[in-house]
Amino acid sequence: MLKLIPNRIEIRSGNQYIVLLNETTAHILDLHIGDRVKVKNGKYEATAILQISEDGIKDGHIGLYMEAWKELRARRGQRITLSLADKPLATKYIRKKLDGGRLTTEEIDEIIKDITDDNLSDIELTYFVSGCYIHGLDNHETAELTKSIVKHGSKLDFGNRLVLDKHCIGGVPGNRTTMVVIPIVTAAGLLMPKTSSRAITSPAGTADTMEVLANVKNEAPKLTKIAEKIGGFITWGGGVDLAAADDHMIKVRHPLSLDPEGMLLASIMAKKHSVGAKRCLIDIPVGEQVKVQDIRRAKHLRARFIQIGKILGIKVKVIFSNGEQPIGNGIGPLLEAQDVMKVLANAPDAPADLREKSLYMAGILLELGGKAMSGFGYRKAKKILKKGQALEQMNKIIDAQGRKRLPKNASLIYKVKSGKEGKVSYINNKAISRLARVAGAPLDAAAGIYLRKKLGDTVKKNEVLYEIHSNNADRAEFSKDMSKKESGYTVK
Amino acid sequence: MLKLIPNRIEIRSGNQYIVLLNETTAHILDLHIGDRVKVKNGKYEATAILQISEDGIKDGHIGLYMEAWKELRARRGQRITLSLADKPLATKYIRKKLDGGRLTTEEIDEIIKDITDDNLSDIELTYFVSGCYIHGLDNHETAELTKSIVKHGSKLDFGNRLVLDKHCIGGVPGNRTTMVVIPIVTAAGLLMPKTSSRAITSPAGTADTMEVLANVKNEAPKLTKIAEKIGGFITWGGGVDLAAADDHMIKVRHPLSLDPEGMLLASIMAKKHSVGAKRCLIDIPVGEQVKVQDIRRAKHLRARFIQIGKILGIKVKVIFSNGEQPIGNGIGPLLEAQDVMKVLANAPDAPADLREKSLYMAGILLELGGKAMSGFGYRKAKKILKKGQALEQMNKIIDAQGRKRLPKNASLIYKVKSGKEGKVSYINNKAISRLARVAGAPLDAAAGIYLRKKLGDTVKKNEVLYEIHSNNADRAEFSKDMSKKESGYTVK
Repeated sequence: MLKLIPNRIEIRSGNQYIVLLNETTAHILDLHIGDRVKVKNGKYEATAILQISEDGIKDGHIGLYMEAWKELRARRGQRITLSLADKPLATKYIRKKLDGGRLTTEEIDEIIKDITDDNLSDIELTYFVSGCYIHGLDNHETAELTKSIVKHGSKLDFGNRLVLDKHCIGGVPGNRTTMVVIPIVTAAGLLMPKTSSRAITSPAGTADTMEVLANVKNEAPKLTKIAEKIGGFITWGGGVDLAAADDHMIKVRHPLSLDPEGMLLASIMAKKHSVGAKRCLIDIPVGEQVKVQDIRRAKHLRARFIQIGKILGIKVKVIFSNGEQPIGNGIGPLLEAQDVMKVLANAPDAPADLREKSLYMAGILLELGGKAMSGFGYRKAKKILKKGQALEQMNKIIDAQGRKRLPKNASLIYKVKSGKEGKVSYINNKAISRLARVAGAPLDAAAGIYLRKKLGDTVKKNEVLYEIHSNNADRAEFSKDMSKKESGYTVK
Repeated sequence: MLKLIPNRIEIRSGNQYIVLLNETTAHILDLHIGDRVKVKNGKYEATAILQISEDGIKDGHIGLYMEAWKELRARRGQRITLSLADKPLATKYIRKKLDGGRLTTEEIDEIIKDITDDNLSDIELTYFVSGCYIHGLDNHETAELTKSIVKHGSKLDFGNRLVLDKHCIGGVPGNRTTMVVIPIVTAAGLLMPKTSSRAITSPAGTADTMEVLANVKNEAPKLTKIAEKIGGFITWGGGVDLAAADDHMIKVRHPLSLDPEGMLLASIMAKKHSVGAKRCLIDIPVGEQVKVQDIRRAKHLRARFIQIGKILGIKVKVIFSNGEQPIGNGIGPLLEAQDVMKVLANAPDAPADLREKSLYMAGILLELGGKAMSGFGYRKAKKILKKGQALEQMNKIIDAQGRKRLPKNASLIYKVKSGKEGKVSYINNKAISRLARVAGAPLDAAAGIYLRKKLGDTVKKNEVLYEIHSNNADRAEFSKDMSKKESGYTVK
């Protein structure tokens, strides 16, 4: 214990209390960066994370970031006592996972509680991710991880009503089935409150596409009301904070793009569990250029989803879909939203693949929800769509969330043409996604790619394969050049 | 790319450039915490690490920490362009190690270069440590790691002269052989420039003990001169920056107290390699309460030290020593320094175990250095000590480094007595170390423990086992209470 002179540091540190010592003082106290210390000013005390500053703080002084300064009611001329605090119990369990151990329910819960409360440093969190990445999490650990994430996050509560949900493993551009499925399923009277993600490395996530039509930053109480009234919504998950611990873990997974399987599964299932879903449809697209590249891995994931679902009390149905080309024609928020609205409006130029995949998925969900006999779900979904009930329902959802004015289509359109005659034999999802991003998606909602040809289509020489949409001349030029180097299409 | 309004943030960030965006701007740009971004102001540019601040920075603004502000020659009213920078190649190799791969010379060097240059975030560094911890580093990887740490750090160069070194694996309190060995070996005309560490979790490191007698924060050019003139020195390694990358790695190992074996070995060998050592003696104490707890592990480490030494061109000799009780009588900087000086002065009350162990080690080094025939090293070492040449040499070293005034012995001394008659059958190193730390070591140099009885000694009832030395009444009281609960001694 040492009495230190407090210096006020004019920075907010967020949820953690942070204090600063210089190297000499830290050495005298035998403290290291990231150590937890107990700081005390009379009756006020806090546990803070220690940072060591190379200059600015004098010997015997302690820098207090604004939150710590306030919490300790510090004032000039006072003295702060400092002592080493115990390490959180969670670090012991993280070490156990690093050493290849299997974590118990209580151990996982302790870790997740500390992650949610911001009690762990990035370094400690990274060790947890490393341990889970290298040693894996079994089904029980994954289910417990899911429960803890939900327990320490916000929840939506619909009492005893049956809640349905869906999830699609990423990687297929244009895969906006959610925006067709939710209107159909909720039009049938089922409850399906859907949270979706934004684009991370893709040109658009469902949340970005929905945001073209409606507000997707809604708070939990409003969302609960919307779902109770009209059966569902399509909102951005990040706006509801349903899985705060998961967001923290994703943050440290990002620098190395790590996807520890158990964390991936828990991350998905936590979102279902937090809205109280009891039936869930999972779509696993399989293809060379998507996340799941072979059927063996798809089957492995299916088995895990079903087992983890059982532990959580969620009936999970898994389908495998073709991930070899984009779904629909538009890629980018506005172009995808237009595809969706065409399907819902039964427009003659609506993309058939998006419609069919959505009907198939909606059919399964209607069966899972008891609104159709086994084998009759697809037909029922089609009927709801054809009658215009799905469109009507989508408009209700949009209005409830807050309708937005549709942006204009992009001002610059460049047509990429085929150099020869033949059939489209291969479409590179990643190359097409990259072009859409370079054109400006998702930041520029109208930017992206509009496909004129899909796999198996016959193409004449100089016929248009796809259009690049952009509102920025530099970006348009750059993506045009890129498409010349690699169009992403193979015509044979 | 986006033009952003610069805000000057009055914080130094150390070696890294750091910039701040708020969440909205970061989202629009699809950037995450820890991303590397290229920031540009006209012809001035820098690669910076992105932090996301929850408040303080407005939409479309960018916060520049002082280093970035200066580097970009930023001024109010200007606009900063920002774009995503490539991830360092090193992150790919870190991922490879996490996935269980074996790293090549080039890959390891790229990682260490980036660590030294502060190009990797703590999260990335933690992933590297995790990968090395779980998957291990083989002898070649460890040798390459050693070479890279040395290549990218400072070095001491003694031309073609034969350089000797020693190292002791930690955990034995009072083990200050270095301070006896260096004077003997250098008195014989050999070159032995020694860098030592400070206490981490022990009551004193060699650097702390030497610091009682002399300045241990010397810079490389001065140290080179001292060694060239008188053959050696005993200084604090942290003051010379011989292994900067190693210090970075230790920083992220600290929160979970991780000691990945390969990193431990590389850390030790790098210090030898950076002073150009060609012969090295490694002491591995074995005991229940020290780092290496069984002879199997000691033999495993011996084999690795020798193999890695071969790759590095260092002839390594490994000895196993008894780690079952402290060496010498004093524990704590001043008490240990007094033990050392008594041995050097051939004082009648000098601790025999410290003298014998030091003579044994000095003997081996004299043989390794060609100053004694095989089997005659011990005798030669003893002769140098007895003649007072070692003491004379130690005084030269102290004067060259900068003599300090010896502090007074502690004002409060509490005697811990035996409750019964018998023989000392067990001494708990960890319990004794803890008492010394609680009494105030190493912060208070005079604080610590002075042992009056060692293993095998006969004890009468109420005879003193050891003394607790302290200058602080609270600490004295606390350690007294602790010693009552657990004295650390077993008398049978």
